[in-house]
Amino acid sequence: MVWDPALEIAFHPTVVAMVGVSADAKRSEHRPSGGATFIAGFEQLGFQGRIYPVNTKATEILGYKAYPSVSAIPEPVDLVVISVPAQAVPAVLEDCITANAKNIHMYTAGFEETGEEEAKELGLKVRQIALRGGLRIIGPNCVGLLAPKSHLTTLARLPLEPGPIAFFSQGGGQAEDCVDFGSPRGLGFSKVVSYGNALDVDESEFLEYLAQDPETEIISAYIEGVRDGRRFFSALKGATSQKPVVIYKGGTTEAGQRAARSHTASLTSSVAVFNAVCHQLNAIQVNGLEELIDVLVTLRFATPLPRGTGVAIVGAGGSPAVLASDAMESAGLQLPNLSPEVQTKLKQCLPVEGGGFTNPVDATNLVSPEAIYAALCVVGKVSDIHTLIYHLGFHPLSHWGNGRLSSTTYLQAAIDAFTQAQQAADKPVMLVLRPPPDLVGMKEFLATQKAFVKARFPVFHSLYNAAKAIARVVAWGQA
Amino acid sequence: MVWDPALEIAFHPTVVAMVGVSADAKRSEHRPSGGATFIAGFEQLGFQGRIYPVNTKATEILGYKAYPSVSAIPEPVDLVVISVPAQAVPAVLEDCITANAKNIHMYTAGFEETGEEEAKELGLKVRQIALRGGLRIIGPNCVGLLAPKSHLTTLARLPLEPGPIAFFSQGGGQAEDCVDFGSPRGLGFSKVVSYGNALDVDESEFLEYLAQDPETEIISAYIEGVRDGRRFFSALKGATSQKPVVIYKGGTTEAGQRAARSHTASLTSSVAVFNAVCHQLNAIQVNGLEELIDVLVTLRFATPLPRGTGVAIVGAGGSPAVLASDAMESAGLQLPNLSPEVQTKLKQCLPVEGGGFTNPVDATNLVSPEAIYAALCVVGKVSDIHTLIYHLGFHPLSHWGNGRLSSTTYLQAAIDAFTQAQQAADKPVMLVLRPPPDLVGMKEFLATQKAFVKARFPVFHSLYNAAKAIARVVAWGQA
Repeated sequence: MVWDPALEIAFHPTVVAMVGVSADAKRSEHRPSGGATFIAGFEQLGFQGRIYPVNTKATEILGYKAYPSVSAIPEPVDLVVISVPAQAVPAVLEDCITANAKNIHMYTAGFEETGEEEAKELGLKVRQIALRGGLRIIGPNCVGLLAPKSHLTTLARLPLEPGPIAFFSQGGGQAEDCVDFGSPRGLGFSKVVSYGNALDVDESEFLEYLAQDPETEIISAYIEGVRDGRRFFSALKGATSQKPVVIYKGGTTEAGQRAARSHTASLTSSVAVFNAVCHQLNAIQVNGLEELIDVLVTLRFATPLPRGTGVAIVGAGGSPAVLASDAMESAGLQLPNLSPEVQTKLKQCLPVEGGGFTNPVDATNLVSPEAIYAALCVVGKVSDIHTLIYHLGFHPLSHWGNGRLSSTTYLQAAIDAFTQAQQAADKPVMLVLRPPPDLVGMKEFLATQKAFVKARFPVFHSLYNAAKAIARVVAWGQA
Repeated sequence: MVWDPALEIAFHPTVVAMVGVSADAKRSEHRPSGGATFIAGFEQLGFQGRIYPVNTKATEILGYKAYPSVSAIPEPVDLVVISVPAQAVPAVLEDCITANAKNIHMYTAGFEETGEEEAKELGLKVRQIALRGGLRIIGPNCVGLLAPKSHLTTLARLPLEPGPIAFFSQGGGQAEDCVDFGSPRGLGFSKVVSYGNALDVDESEFLEYLAQDPETEIISAYIEGVRDGRRFFSALKGATSQKPVVIYKGGTTEAGQRAARSHTASLTSSVAVFNAVCHQLNAIQVNGLEELIDVLVTLRFATPLPRGTGVAIVGAGGSPAVLASDAMESAGLQLPNLSPEVQTKLKQCLPVEGGGFTNPVDATNLVSPEAIYAALCVVGKVSDIHTLIYHLGFHPLSHWGNGRLSSTTYLQAAIDAFTQAQQAADKPVMLVLRPPPDLVGMKEFLATQKAFVKARFPVFHSLYNAAKAIARVVAWGQA
């Protein structure tokens, strides 16, 4: 079995019906709710197609012509977004069949995940209607779709640049988080899907679709349960043979599995089997959403991808050097020793009192862009070093670089130094920039991160995070 | 051997000599450097005693009467802060002996940690002078001391409330971080020490001193190497028998140990032995500074301390519930099942569509303070639940509580609900509040955290962090 071409239409719709918008929905509300939220999202992203609210009591909602049913809409409907109460869903689906509207995003919750008999039966009924009518349902119990290139979103988010990352997620919260926390790190998305209970379209079909999707270069996922083990194996095999696939598995403990049943009605299969399959097929498994984002950032921006486990760290402070070393080595990376010749060269370009010239290179954060460039070039020439990490200062309240990074000229000069060193070494330069605890520092942090991200550097928020992500990507590349 | 009473004077000095302030130091500089930094720090904290810069070329520096030597100062000196170059240190120490000034904080670096023969010999010479003259040296190669109650600081920091936490650290960066990241979480400090190479006063003596220090209720430390294993064992035994002791050990890997040698000249002993000693003496070991702060926050604010491993989580979202469950169980905590009776009671107080009534209780973040109170009281009565965690929403861009937490009235009502539920249950209520990725969200986050911290709640930045800290504290309490 392969992915249904209907999915392609679901992600690139021209005509969208919104079932479940109140007749008196107002744009002036601080936060619109229900179906009006989805309309607001589409408007924010500048959707180019046509939107039809469906409501039996209104002829116009929020300035859009409303119809009493999907089948009453006078043109073919590409996507139906359903947010009516669960009891009302079967009738809406029958109407979709009448209208020949195949693609459904079902926001409505209250099915199998409640654990209640009646709700389970309702879910079964929904599935039977869908099968009979050839409907393709994303959901139920999910936030839905985001496709920046199509200006499509049921995940109300700010205007976003499209990009080559796909993320499909059983959890709506994870889908939103991936966008909210990934975007400032430079991640642009081809498609983001929250697919909830996976009553119809499931993780295997998303894998199959995204594996061949020309807009997607890197696939990532948050999965609670696998619906069809055999199909999943084959879909994952197909996907990993073409693109990197990064997977975060929820429900890895007994309590987590119980919660997954009550969240998306997922019957999580054996974690050991899942892990073994990922290992065998070289999917990159991660243990949290932050780690998922870190790995995506590495895959997307490391130039070139690291070719081995050797890391050199250049940056501020002696204590960070100890922690950095522990972080790197416990993640499975190495910090090769520097030969006396290399140390001598470093001494020449880093005239820093009290600095050390072993690896990590404890340069204080007072050094000039020229010195940064020279030092990175020296360690970049060492053959068993494959990745160069520059660690920006550790003292938020004194502002890293003693305030010099806040100056646009210094920041641009530092970026140029990193860029040139990366090219000269033909090894990736990655940056560690730590979020400070105060608002003034945070403002500076975000501006600095933005500048580095714009220059297409992987930026991590701690040495531990960098270490884990690099180790995952190196292991993936060497498998 | 017990701690030297001189330490008590070092932390509560009346007369301080600053050796290494340039004759032309100016207050107008954006960031004063060298000795002037220390003077600026003392001024910021409102030091009540007398400061004497020592300089052969000036009679007044920054408005303070300067003297050519410590021995020329016309009154007994309680603390001498030395920041001259390493070569000049022996002469300064001889002068201190002449002046009968016993307590030294030596900022100066460039001794054993450089790995160079000449520098090592200089260190040895310093140690011999100190022994002969009965000097007590904190350092060298360290940032120094912070004692808010004495308005004393060589760690230039904003005015700080004193508190019952002591932190002694071989790394200056860690000492600064502990203050910078711990203060917004409500941690107040009795004493913070960065002690660098531990050439004279070492970790054992700090433990001995702090164990009996009436200003200190909780002891914490960042240690790279142990100078005297036997004394350390006995000091730690004495300390843990009286107060909780939290230890973060740096240099747990081979590369980390190499870095520690070059940072503070520490010869890290066997990690396995260190761990075994901590375990035997019931010191709480942590794996990072954030975890250290999390444990300190738990010890300081959990009311009462958790009496067992059972946790109930109430809060927003289904996906967080899965992650929370995985987090808790992998940290060694339990999320007990809720009986049908308890679930029915929860349903009555949380009329939330699509919410689940298992543990974690997937209440959306729309609930009122009354509902929060009622729900926490219901789960608080379950006998195998020992800690109540309230998880504040997961969607930074929509602002937690759908904007309601930003309203002062709602926030205060929520705080009252948490406070009353904690009292009613006689079990600790802890809060998880996640830092958002944007500046607007961060402003709200910091204000909300501040309000919760002011109300003396433990606030964690992720469910994982909460889980790890609670597990550590429960294990400590049960040992």
